[in-house]
Amino acid sequence: MNAPIIQAPTIEMLKLLEEMTAFSAPGPGVTRLLYTPEWSQAQAFLQERMARIGLEVRTDKVGNVYGRLKGSKSEEKVILTGSHIDTVVNGGDYDGSYGIAAAMTALHYLQRTFGQPLRSLEVVSFCEEEGSRFPLTYWGSGYVNGMYNGSEAEDNADADGITMKTAMAECGLESDTVVDADKDTDGSSGVRDDIGAFVELHIEQGILLEKTSTEIGVVQAIVGQRRYVVKVGGTANHAGTTPMTMRQDALAGVAEMLVELERSAAETGAPLVATTGRLEVFPNTPNVIPGEVLFTLDIRHSEAIELENFCIYILATLNGIAVRRGLEIDITTRLNTIPAPMDLGLCGVLEDICQSQGSSYCNMVSGAGHDAQLFAPRCPTAMIFVPSRNGISHSPEEYSSPEQLAAGLNVLTALLYDLAYLEN
Amino acid sequence: MNAPIIQAPTIEMLKLLEEMTAFSAPGPGVTRLLYTPEWSQAQAFLQERMARIGLEVRTDKVGNVYGRLKGSKSEEKVILTGSHIDTVVNGGDYDGSYGIAAAMTALHYLQRTFGQPLRSLEVVSFCEEEGSRFPLTYWGSGYVNGMYNGSEAEDNADADGITMKTAMAECGLESDTVVDADKDTDGSSGVRDDIGAFVELHIEQGILLEKTSTEIGVVQAIVGQRRYVVKVGGTANHAGTTPMTMRQDALAGVAEMLVELERSAAETGAPLVATTGRLEVFPNTPNVIPGEVLFTLDIRHSEAIELENFCIYILATLNGIAVRRGLEIDITTRLNTIPAPMDLGLCGVLEDICQSQGSSYCNMVSGAGHDAQLFAPRCPTAMIFVPSRNGISHSPEEYSSPEQLAAGLNVLTALLYDLAYLEN
Repeated sequence: MNAPIIQAPTIEMLKLLEEMTAFSAPGPGVTRLLYTPEWSQAQAFLQERMARIGLEVRTDKVGNVYGRLKGSKSEEKVILTGSHIDTVVNGGDYDGSYGIAAAMTALHYLQRTFGQPLRSLEVVSFCEEEGSRFPLTYWGSGYVNGMYNGSEAEDNADADGITMKTAMAECGLESDTVVDADKDTDGSSGVRDDIGAFVELHIEQGILLEKTSTEIGVVQAIVGQRRYVVKVGGTANHAGTTPMTMRQDALAGVAEMLVELERSAAETGAPLVATTGRLEVFPNTPNVIPGEVLFTLDIRHSEAIELENFCIYILATLNGIAVRRGLEIDITTRLNTIPAPMDLGLCGVLEDICQSQGSSYCNMVSGAGHDAQLFAPRCPTAMIFVPSRNGISHSPEEYSSPEQLAAGLNVLTALLYDLAYLEN
Repeated sequence: MNAPIIQAPTIEMLKLLEEMTAFSAPGPGVTRLLYTPEWSQAQAFLQERMARIGLEVRTDKVGNVYGRLKGSKSEEKVILTGSHIDTVVNGGDYDGSYGIAAAMTALHYLQRTFGQPLRSLEVVSFCEEEGSRFPLTYWGSGYVNGMYNGSEAEDNADADGITMKTAMAECGLESDTVVDADKDTDGSSGVRDDIGAFVELHIEQGILLEKTSTEIGVVQAIVGQRRYVVKVGGTANHAGTTPMTMRQDALAGVAEMLVELERSAAETGAPLVATTGRLEVFPNTPNVIPGEVLFTLDIRHSEAIELENFCIYILATLNGIAVRRGLEIDITTRLNTIPAPMDLGLCGVLEDICQSQGSSYCNMVSGAGHDAQLFAPRCPTAMIFVPSRNGISHSPEEYSSPEQLAAGLNVLTALLYDLAYLEN
């Protein structure tokens, strides 16, 4: 490590973050859904600000916004950093926005302080990550990494029946040409092969850093995730007149399944997490034995083999409980993403930076999905976390202090310096 | 026992039952809610039919309909039999109606075959038992037994905000005078002190008789019932970023509670039954750890002390699970009825009748509530059950065969003969 002392301007970043919160639909917190007027205004605002700090601005066919600080070695690949501009409904000020505001501030600071980099530095404001308007996630970073073929714009509609294609047209985006996305290495649009590294700074959205009074999380991997919907069928019957020995109580069976889920997850240990967040009972009447229960399973682990093994075990266990109780069971897979390991070399650089900056840090796994996981299979990728108060995100309560945000900004800036300014 | 061979006319009863099903709101099955036009028409139809078979007809201030076959010993108390005319939404043809149609058929047959009884025989069509329109049950039989003071008519409203008082006025019933209900022993209206015995014939609404191929259930007691609403509070959190060891998962806690409920109910054994029929999860999102769960407990037993002991045990157990897991718990009692033992003497008479008629029978507990439980503390009371196909009731699927209904009719008729025609 050879980096100078980095003191990026926190105030500039906080002001930008605050200005970004203004682009929101009415209601508590920030609501900025893909291809809405407030989303368009936010992306236009960022383009204007990127231009003002001297970046070369462009957008691509799905509405990702890029701002480039051109390097002197134009033949080398680009160092990309940023996050997503969209939010959940009634989300907070920091999820996604922080990574963009910090990236812009870092590029502005690096250019002012150290001049032109060797390798081009780019900030990106991805159009979408959350999947809050359309039933699709990572539309922005997925597009950049060739995960989508463009037909998604016609196949997906929001709750009002408006397709992505229509919503894109209202924002002046030509979805018809998405499918033909050129793979220009000048990065003018489409799938990109010109990325040398991707770095994302994000709030933790968990409670680990706060609980351990740690300033920086160096993400080792983003977990893989399986999501299932389980339907358990019994026999609805009168709660008073059906003896306990003559019941096929779907809810009683599911209760046993959930106890076993929790027990086996605890036995497997971290970083495995297993959750039933949604559960519906039918007919859901106090004096009727439940005839059917639907519930979700959300299982995550940073190691593909561990995730696979746990899922095999728990699905077999649920089946066994159902069979023993004479219940029907039907399990549908809704999501299956593999774990995304971050680049070990970049993790090491991040540790060095934290040490030299005097920031406490820990290596950790990201239990939540992020745009970075789309880059990890294709280029060296790093993620930096800062603490979230009470572990809360996706809520107007979302909060990280200026000091915490500043620590993350300085670590990000130092890493970008290392990647773009130093000879290999 | 001194009864002659009883062969009550099944066809007359089945025809009456079929005619009664016509009085229904649109939709599957029979929907005849209290103080609706279809309810009024059904009660008017029964008055006309009671008069046609020679009964003295009258109604009381809440809309119960009586038909009397006057006895020669007018100083003796009345033998009352019948059931309720109201149904649940999309109910069946038999629940309640069967007890009325059979009672009318029995009185008609007894009068034709054996002439005037010693003691007056009365059939009653109670205005309401189910609690399906207003949040109140046993309004008909409760009124007769002095359980209500009349203020209920103003205090209770249906889902559309129509009070019972308004609904009664629309049926020509003066709710203002309900509270002053006279206690005339001529039974012209109000709370009645002139009942010498009450007998109710009803479908089982359970599967015991069918499973054991038994024709008649001689009810020994109607269970007491406790109903609770339990609210369990944890901490809603991100399902991916919150380690298993840092969770207060309300649903995981409730799952453990339900497993313990089922286990301890099985250990206690019949006739105890314990059910969670309704359960709601908040926020009920696949990737959010449940922060709150609401669920119901429905616990029934025929012995007051056993019911009390089980409830004390299970509530303490739920509290213990909540405390151990750091969850908040709040338990509200919603219903508390004591068990209603039937008259042992009348049970013995019923057994003798079944034997002499060649009907298989068993002594059993009613796990469902019935109008008879309001009479049990005040006069000798008996209940007779016939099988329900698949144990189903409160559904258009409700069914008992003509043979099963006929067996019940003959047992009822014989008991009424015994009570009204024989010298004590």
